[in-house]
Amino acid sequence: MTPLPAAPATVPVRGGAGRVPFGFHPVPPAATMNDRLSSRARAIRRSEVRDLLRHAGRPGMVSLAGGLPAAELFDVEGVRAAALAALDDAPAAALQYGMTEGQPALREAIAARLQARSIAATPQALVVTTGSQQGLDLVARALLDEGDVVVVERPSYLAALQAFGLAGPAWRSIGVDGDGGRVEDLDAACAGVRPKLVYVVPNFANPTGACMSLERRRALVRWAAAHRVVVLEDDPYGELRTRGTPLPSLAAIAAEVPGASEWIGHASTLSKTVAPGLRVGWLLLPAWLREAVVLLKQACDLHTSSFAQEVASRYLASGRLEARLDLVRTEYARRRDALAGALDEGFGARLEVRVPDGGMFLWARFTDRTDARALLPLALERGTMFVPGDAFFVDATGTADAAVRASLRLNFSAATPDRLREGVRRLVDAHRTLRGRTAVAAR
Amino acid sequence: MTPLPAAPATVPVRGGAGRVPFGFHPVPPAATMNDRLSSRARAIRRSEVRDLLRHAGRPGMVSLAGGLPAAELFDVEGVRAAALAALDDAPAAALQYGMTEGQPALREAIAARLQARSIAATPQALVVTTGSQQGLDLVARALLDEGDVVVVERPSYLAALQAFGLAGPAWRSIGVDGDGGRVEDLDAACAGVRPKLVYVVPNFANPTGACMSLERRRALVRWAAAHRVVVLEDDPYGELRTRGTPLPSLAAIAAEVPGASEWIGHASTLSKTVAPGLRVGWLLLPAWLREAVVLLKQACDLHTSSFAQEVASRYLASGRLEARLDLVRTEYARRRDALAGALDEGFGARLEVRVPDGGMFLWARFTDRTDARALLPLALERGTMFVPGDAFFVDATGTADAAVRASLRLNFSAATPDRLREGVRRLVDAHRTLRGRTAVAAR
Repeated sequence: MTPLPAAPATVPVRGGAGRVPFGFHPVPPAATMNDRLSSRARAIRRSEVRDLLRHAGRPGMVSLAGGLPAAELFDVEGVRAAALAALDDAPAAALQYGMTEGQPALREAIAARLQARSIAATPQALVVTTGSQQGLDLVARALLDEGDVVVVERPSYLAALQAFGLAGPAWRSIGVDGDGGRVEDLDAACAGVRPKLVYVVPNFANPTGACMSLERRRALVRWAAAHRVVVLEDDPYGELRTRGTPLPSLAAIAAEVPGASEWIGHASTLSKTVAPGLRVGWLLLPAWLREAVVLLKQACDLHTSSFAQEVASRYLASGRLEARLDLVRTEYARRRDALAGALDEGFGARLEVRVPDGGMFLWARFTDRTDARALLPLALERGTMFVPGDAFFVDATGTADAAVRASLRLNFSAATPDRLREGVRRLVDAHRTLRGRTAVAAR
Repeated sequence: MTPLPAAPATVPVRGGAGRVPFGFHPVPPAATMNDRLSSRARAIRRSEVRDLLRHAGRPGMVSLAGGLPAAELFDVEGVRAAALAALDDAPAAALQYGMTEGQPALREAIAARLQARSIAATPQALVVTTGSQQGLDLVARALLDEGDVVVVERPSYLAALQAFGLAGPAWRSIGVDGDGGRVEDLDAACAGVRPKLVYVVPNFANPTGACMSLERRRALVRWAAAHRVVVLEDDPYGELRTRGTPLPSLAAIAAEVPGASEWIGHASTLSKTVAPGLRVGWLLLPAWLREAVVLLKQACDLHTSSFAQEVASRYLASGRLEARLDLVRTEYARRRDALAGALDEGFGARLEVRVPDGGMFLWARFTDRTDARALLPLALERGTMFVPGDAFFVDATGTADAAVRASLRLNFSAATPDRLREGVRRLVDAHRTLRGRTAVAAR
């Protein structure tokens, strides 16, 4: 055997069975193995939300931390009927390999839903993905080399930061206010660079719940066309509006702005409307980007579960979704109002709450400068949990800024009004304890 | 608006709606957009097999090209019962978000199956993937930076080359003979470098159908431990053995070689045993690598369809798979023999055929130096298709070597014996026509 020069080799191996031509480095195995990982694997950022969720299963826990839709509102009967229809009518379509782009019937059903929202989507322009999360990863892989510039909202969806972060990009960001991402700040954010990707969640953003105003949407689409920069619109929550008038999607506005359709991508999912367990999402992309994404997806997982896709397309064809969405929206509004009411009652002016018109999250900020990270362990002890706001910031602006450190994201979709109120009671108790300690420390 | 300096800007935009601060490059859009893609997206290699499969749907086509299992042998009734059980017993588990690592019940069922094959697998050591293809992509992303060395068999599984190729690795390869990959050539192949990854398909390899001998398996596991190099064993076909004695998996042998379990990864799937449409595969990995893979998977798609996983675990629990596999093996043996017999009858000594003991593919080589790529269009005209052998080579050894150019892969799982014989008749006709032309040209 020829020794491999790059291998660490100084001490003899113990108890080697078989022929072992050279020895090994005396450093601890973990350190040795770490150098075997790719640079992106070594740099990857854990999702704090998913780590937190390990606590969510504790008996009695009221989790305001996750982003789970209400399981008790899933249309199990409808999905059951769709599964039977898929296996009875065309078992080979459900069980055999399929096209990387997605099952034709599902792409047609999704295109029809998008068209109903004034988005000029054809089935051919869609790629079915394993949840919208895979859409984010595929777009990132198609566009980004290390050091390329990505613009996100500040704060932004954590798992998007994770997916884009794998490329090792240079981050830029725009702030968010009550009218969504501050599109007017894009030029300042991009001074001196041309981004590869701008990522926004215009409807009921995670974590802020904010909706981007129509004026900003139009400005963003014009900006994308003018600068020839891909803007990816992630829209998981658009169908969860509980009040007010729906605003057109960037993908709809793009049809009115010459050249814009080459630069606007749209990602969404059935996770918040039908069921996340299906893992069925989609990308609507201009042809030049879609081709790259399809080739990448082929190498990533060949295609998304045909079984899940056939069940999803039959569920959409059943016409049951609209009534179900009405139910979900009504219940989520009730839960949002219960949470907002309890927060107001429990905290009063000490907590500023932004109550959204839809989606699944409330964004709140302590006006008494309570540090959300310091509050979290006390909340966990008392059986409730939330995500500290600074987790959603891509850069140090999060941890450095006291206003950010005082913010938190609260989910209202996964618990009943009574449980939400109980969670807030525990949170109020945790806050009181923390303030007491702080007051003592300050003496 | 501040102009973004990296944007190509020379001619004014036509018909711009809204404020357009600077013009655009006069090159065709496709070329402009190409520079927006990542280097890996620009370099990606299309799967020739999947491109070929576009022809597979033509009326009357007898495809020997794909790698599809026989859809008529899917246990539709069993999957149907499993789907109902999943939705009736625990709908939230099937429809809600799940753990990135995979559904607990499925990991237990897979671990039990692996243990029955003497692989010391625990549920905790498994990661459920969206088909084994995603396992290959995740391992590649966890290990490979650009320029890292990957060793593959020559020829090798095309979609593995695609997945690893996304990292832009330096390829090395070992040849394959009747006893599988030539492990004894590893040191020569790796002269001067320490690979990050060695990839093998020890059972009924795609495309050659070859099985790696026990001696080589042991040598490979010792080599991995000695050199501290990850060896990924991909085993989609191991349960499709139709004759002879099963050989232990590398993952089983690793338990007997000190240190080896840190370096042997094992990937497999339900695609060839239950149904590919579920897209349920798995990785069995040492902890240091598994942790990186789980974090990557979280960013890639959060998790594999919980619905498909719950259906799969209930199907495995039903105990129906063994009887079904007996049926599949019997039928695949019949099809393999039908194809081998027809080839022998049609081509005689002009085609050397390697008849495997299982799996889904025959590997063959024309002894009259027929060029398989030249034959393919004539075969397509006559209503049959195959994959030219040189498609499976990672480097130019494929296209440069006349013996490789004379080789082809033939699938026998997807067509009935009668259809296989008809396919061979068409292939013989195509071959006769090509040889006639060649003879004329040679005059």
